[in-house]
Amino acid sequence: MQVAGFQAAAVQAGIRYQGRLDLGLIVAEGPATVAGVFTTNLVKAAPVLLGQERVAKGQAQAILVNSGCANACTGTAGMAAARAAAAAVARSLGIAEELVLPCSTGVIGEPLPVERIEAAVPDLVRDLAADGLPAVARAMMTTDTRPKTASRTGLVAGRPVTVAGLAKGAGMIMPNMATMLSFLLTDAALEATALQEALRQAVAESFNAITIDGDTSTNDTVLLLASGRAGHPPLTPADRDGPAAFTALLSDLCQDLAGQIVADGEGVTKEVTIRVRGARTRQEAEQAGRTIANSALVKTAFFGADANWGRILAAAGRSGAWLDPRRVAIAIDGVLLVRDGLAVGQEAEAAATAILKGRSFTVTVDLGAGPAEFAIRTCDLSIDYVKINADYRS
Amino acid sequence: MQVAGFQAAAVQAGIRYQGRLDLGLIVAEGPATVAGVFTTNLVKAAPVLLGQERVAKGQAQAILVNSGCANACTGTAGMAAARAAAAAVARSLGIAEELVLPCSTGVIGEPLPVERIEAAVPDLVRDLAADGLPAVARAMMTTDTRPKTASRTGLVAGRPVTVAGLAKGAGMIMPNMATMLSFLLTDAALEATALQEALRQAVAESFNAITIDGDTSTNDTVLLLASGRAGHPPLTPADRDGPAAFTALLSDLCQDLAGQIVADGEGVTKEVTIRVRGARTRQEAEQAGRTIANSALVKTAFFGADANWGRILAAAGRSGAWLDPRRVAIAIDGVLLVRDGLAVGQEAEAAATAILKGRSFTVTVDLGAGPAEFAIRTCDLSIDYVKINADYRS
Repeated sequence: MQVAGFQAAAVQAGIRYQGRLDLGLIVAEGPATVAGVFTTNLVKAAPVLLGQERVAKGQAQAILVNSGCANACTGTAGMAAARAAAAAVARSLGIAEELVLPCSTGVIGEPLPVERIEAAVPDLVRDLAADGLPAVARAMMTTDTRPKTASRTGLVAGRPVTVAGLAKGAGMIMPNMATMLSFLLTDAALEATALQEALRQAVAESFNAITIDGDTSTNDTVLLLASGRAGHPPLTPADRDGPAAFTALLSDLCQDLAGQIVADGEGVTKEVTIRVRGARTRQEAEQAGRTIANSALVKTAFFGADANWGRILAAAGRSGAWLDPRRVAIAIDGVLLVRDGLAVGQEAEAAATAILKGRSFTVTVDLGAGPAEFAIRTCDLSIDYVKINADYRS
Repeated sequence: MQVAGFQAAAVQAGIRYQGRLDLGLIVAEGPATVAGVFTTNLVKAAPVLLGQERVAKGQAQAILVNSGCANACTGTAGMAAARAAAAAVARSLGIAEELVLPCSTGVIGEPLPVERIEAAVPDLVRDLAADGLPAVARAMMTTDTRPKTASRTGLVAGRPVTVAGLAKGAGMIMPNMATMLSFLLTDAALEATALQEALRQAVAESFNAITIDGDTSTNDTVLLLASGRAGHPPLTPADRDGPAAFTALLSDLCQDLAGQIVADGEGVTKEVTIRVRGARTRQEAEQAGRTIANSALVKTAFFGADANWGRILAAAGRSGAWLDPRRVAIAIDGVLLVRDGLAVGQEAEAAATAILKGRSFTVTVDLGAGPAEFAIRTCDLSIDYVKINADYRS
């Protein structure tokens, strides 16, 4: 997984644990166009606040990421630590400080051990290599059980273009306007506004349409760097086809990474798509979808492979979305369980139960109230989810 | 636990399981004044729809309750079954059908075995006795581990008045305008409008301020019957002190029953009050309180006795309530953990952890944004919660 114009590396900096990669660096050969989306949580980590400020300028050259400490709820000391870590990278690379974007993930409320980061930066810079991205994907893991990477190649403005991405996230995941950490790289050339719009569209139906536990993180960040090395003229929002082709490529990549996040959700044993149809508006479809996808009762029924459609219907009924109880329908994959608000029967339920014993399935809920739809990916709520989160800090 | 003017009984009707009380009946000696509040879920069980219709008339004489089957999502057949069960009671008692309020709790989407109820009604009526209320509290249990009853006596309009109540509920609990099942009886005399207003007020800060899993049931119902046997003239909304004294008594009773429900929540090992202060409005305080109280990450941290205030702050930050990250404070019982958005220190955290190892505590969150408050009772999310709900139907 390589993208023309980028190098990367990761090292063991001992930020929280010994003996694991926990600090990563991605560097473009020169200033790259940058786009970013960030958490909508009112409580924002220091690196999110700094990143928002720097991304707004439209250019960036390096992303520094650490796991083990979120540098959130750390006040002015946290902001100073984020700036100092970025400054160490800038010094070592010989570039302007404002071109470095720091990102952090891990425990909230503890100080960032910036001296360990400063000590590790020279090694990081020395190890930079075109094939270094997978190591960065490992360094940003927290409760993730595996690194998450993906890449796509396609034609944009008549040139072969690559988009590659890294992501992390396994808990505190219900992105609202952005998500956990994901870094996306491309050799395509786009103006900053076109790049930001492509990212916004791609994120809306990928990272913003997943939930693991309904909790939106303080650190959610997606960054997209474009090196322009593919060799076509920079695309602008006015170009007829270029941005659309690039956005399609990017969306496909983001769907892949978002799916990897759900599949590796804390304690996950089931990967579930909730597809709401027949809503009055897209907003109501989303309301119903998110309520079902986050219901503890629905998610524990998935864990138990129980075709308990009553819980799904009860969640839809309390979601605030309008529905017609006499016209509602529910299906699991191809099996219709509820028609006109009533159970189809025991054979259907047995068939649905067999599907629920598998790892992955789609629940379709038709509200019987209008034309709008929304799909969200979720997972079950398992005994291991509780164990992981009762023990995470200790 | 007895209230002048009421008798009760419970029997084993074999509705879902053999060998346990599952059908209860409460009867007033004559038509009583009635008030009720019902679920706001758009998907309402048949007995809820029927009960709303009948309570609107202001008088009732009997409550019939079964566990094992919710009679929800059962369409016109379910409504016919609810009517038939009530009619059987009316015939046996020799009273008008409209004076009987049927209530159901249990699995959603299965037909009510009305013939078993009809067969059991003669025994129920034969067994009616002034001391029968505790048996009804047992008959209405589902995943509850113990019956929930309470009673209060006080002076209303110069007369000693008793209010007694039964409640059930352990899962699918985040009442919105009413809650699970609760039956409240009094020998006070109140006009229907005064009775409804007293109930509305008492429920707002008791049953409507608890959550176990954020799921609002299809069957939530609170009924209040007043026999008038205390002997004072019927209170009207215009009476200066009578309704207030009665409402105070009723509120105290409802707080007691609501607390019993949280204490017996599915898999509960911790009973937690979330008190939000410093919000701009009461609505925002409630938004923040409910979001914290329902956060899977916050609730698993309680289960693990982890003073993980970062999760509490992150939940407040995504709740939609305005907060000032630099002025937020968090305390657990008397221990201040976060001041001005920053950790107080390791000693405070150690003290808070010791408190969290106990069964019951209060988390106070000051948003630093205004004068408004809201308190909600919740519980932890334990391994047993997941086990109970993954297995409930099988």
